[in-house]
Amino acid sequence: MAVRIIYVRHAESLWNPIGKYQGRLDPELSERGHKQAQLLAKALKKYNPTALYSSPLKRTYMTAEYISKELGLPINVDEDLIEIDHGDWSGMLVEKVKEEYPEMFRQWLYEPQNVNFPNGEDLHKVYERVKRFQEKALEKHNGETIVAVSHTVPIRASFVAGLNLPLDKFWSFGCDNASYSILDYDTVRPILYKLNNTYFLGELFVPALDAL
Amino acid sequence: MAVRIIYVRHAESLWNPIGKYQGRLDPELSERGHKQAQLLAKALKKYNPTALYSSPLKRTYMTAEYISKELGLPINVDEDLIEIDHGDWSGMLVEKVKEEYPEMFRQWLYEPQNVNFPNGEDLHKVYERVKRFQEKALEKHNGETIVAVSHTVPIRASFVAGLNLPLDKFWSFGCDNASYSILDYDTVRPILYKLNNTYFLGELFVPALDAL
Repeated sequence: MAVRIIYVRHAESLWNPIGKYQGRLDPELSERGHKQAQLLAKALKKYNPTALYSSPLKRTYMTAEYISKELGLPINVDEDLIEIDHGDWSGMLVEKVKEEYPEMFRQWLYEPQNVNFPNGEDLHKVYERVKRFQEKALEKHNGETIVAVSHTVPIRASFVAGLNLPLDKFWSFGCDNASYSILDYDTVRPILYKLNNTYFLGELFVPALDAL
Repeated sequence: MAVRIIYVRHAESLWNPIGKYQGRLDPELSERGHKQAQLLAKALKKYNPTALYSSPLKRTYMTAEYISKELGLPINVDEDLIEIDHGDWSGMLVEKVKEEYPEMFRQWLYEPQNVNFPNGEDLHKVYERVKRFQEKALEKHNGETIVAVSHTVPIRASFVAGLNLPLDKFWSFGCDNASYSILDYDTVRPILYKLNNTYFLGELFVPALDAL
């Protein structure tokens, strides 16, 4: 059994550049995000994927639409790829979170596995979901390459789940807007083959803000 | 204390395409390797590194020479970046190793941390060396970006050392010829920011053989 999963982080949303936690809230792509998604879609062509999955939120689905058009693949919405529910942080600016939840913010940076967002989710739940997505992919797409359009938290959790790392390694991997990363399940072992590729964005590249 | 280390795997050597273990043996770059190294050197320009380190072996040093010329940086040879000593495997084809050392070959794939190459090194020694290189980099290059030209085994061991992973995760990361990867030590945590970038090689890209 083998499958190649290309994880795509959605292109820039309206809230990414201002540093607002999104969680399950649903801003659209920014003008730059639309352009990024087009370049990203073209960059994925060479991998010849056979299936396309997306989180249901607008920023991911709109990104997936460009990929769908470029690659001629239908979009399969999968709830397991949705962003963590940031609960009470959702819609708040990072600066405001630092002021109102200083201890939880520190925890999110240094021991993210111990944060349970009030009225939201914790990382363990996200881990379970993304692991389930990987198991489904292995079952349904043996020998294929698939694309999964998702968000920072589930994508980083996917690396941790794929490589069987402890959840405290959650922040160990780069994940910028409109980036793609490749996780290969081969017969011997899972391998992170590429990480956080954004070379195709040129001047449209914007580095992710920390802790978001 | 912070430092960005760009790990560069040497361009294609004469032995890479035929699948021969190199270890401390010293083949030169292939014709394609020379061209790859030129493209790689240009791709590194945008990161504005301030120092360049290289393993002493020819395949790394010759790669570093292109980078040195393109970026105007002198080459600092550092023995800590040298390839693992494959001992009795050195100079042998993978196919021959599979025949003559079937159990050790299996071990190298599935539990590399337990292999001690006869008349050579083990992974723990490489880990110590590359960890020491990282500590020196943190001390000498605070706030800077540096380039380290090295080999598959010490580069993968550097990811494991940098992210504080157990050595059994050694094979978890892609590492092709003439690729670059970025490890960021920032004040909060080390991050693997980019992995196995080879987009700039175009038609000159050749995927690494497994187990080498």
